[in-house]
Amino acid sequence: MLYTSESLEILIRELSKLPGIGRKSAQRVALHLLKQPKENVEILSRALIDIKDKIHYCSICYNITETDPCPICSNNKRDRSIICVVEEPNDVMAIEKTNEFKGLFHVLGGSLSPLDGIGPEDLKVTELLSRFSTENPDSNLITEVILAMNPNVEGEATTIYLSKLLKSFGVKVTRIARGLPIGSDMEFADEATLAKALEGRVTI
Amino acid sequence: MLYTSESLEILIRELSKLPGIGRKSAQRVALHLLKQPKENVEILSRALIDIKDKIHYCSICYNITETDPCPICSNNKRDRSIICVVEEPNDVMAIEKTNEFKGLFHVLGGSLSPLDGIGPEDLKVTELLSRFSTENPDSNLITEVILAMNPNVEGEATTIYLSKLLKSFGVKVTRIARGLPIGSDMEFADEATLAKALEGRVTI
Repeated sequence: MLYTSESLEILIRELSKLPGIGRKSAQRVALHLLKQPKENVEILSRALIDIKDKIHYCSICYNITETDPCPICSNNKRDRSIICVVEEPNDVMAIEKTNEFKGLFHVLGGSLSPLDGIGPEDLKVTELLSRFSTENPDSNLITEVILAMNPNVEGEATTIYLSKLLKSFGVKVTRIARGLPIGSDMEFADEATLAKALEGRVTI
Repeated sequence: MLYTSESLEILIRELSKLPGIGRKSAQRVALHLLKQPKENVEILSRALIDIKDKIHYCSICYNITETDPCPICSNNKRDRSIICVVEEPNDVMAIEKTNEFKGLFHVLGGSLSPLDGIGPEDLKVTELLSRFSTENPDSNLITEVILAMNPNVEGEATTIYLSKLLKSFGVKVTRIARGLPIGSDMEFADEATLAKALEGRVTI
């Protein structure tokens, strides 16, 4: 045994399973926690259990929430005519932080990836389409669907797949722009980004 | 509220208090855990509580342990004539990994740092000296004390302070060598390291 304590060994093993945390960081975190008052460690321990107990998925948009429908879906001030489709809950957080979008969301739970065996049936695609069904009282309000997938191969495939499906509902389907990030330097932009920036040029 | 769930907000806040984990990493870890089966999260939660419940300090060397004395102090195969003094439990782990040291340890719990208000009374200095008292049956076995403090200002101050105290016991006091790390390039060594390497030169 490398450590003089088995419970420390277990904690380090569990911590190093987390994304972005290697064995050295896990050891550092474990030894830091060992020095903390027991109450602080209990708060963290409790917080871990709480997210599994309290957090569910919104039955409308499939974003994570403690109430159903989620605070965004149940907010009467949101614009019900636009739905922004994203891959994951953290994409919702990223868009919310901009304070630029006042519509509703739809969280797919991933993107199409045949190599990983992820097809449309593994994503909330049927649930997205059902928002256009006559059973949904808001269905006739929807005028635009924004596809905000990650700018990679899987995101691209998902965007093309969904745009074909959604057009049959006679709704405007848009995608978020791909181009130069603000604050960057054109000289250092990669070819793919620059090509997309040229392709997506807008009249001024 | 930035997140649609208060418990997620709490977990992210608690995680970002850990060393080396910023708000973005905390969010990534929290969302990763949300996707994990409940059992996995419970194992981590339990492991956190366990380290506070089960881990104590060894009454001899003040290293972390689940048994008292710790597995190192109670191991009859260890050389009882040498005590290696270190700052923290992770220094014990680092030295144990080398498989080069077969003596005992003494963990101070930090280093002298007047700027942070840490004096000898905040460290296990009295406890180190008591290992030389006649009440300790092993006291007459000790022939050498190795000071293995971190190579910084505080470690240096602690080394000088302890070496003065320990010499009164008529014991050999040594310090670990400071010099060029193995695999490095002399060209890129900093001046302080190179100066110490010259100062600590040995005959071959």
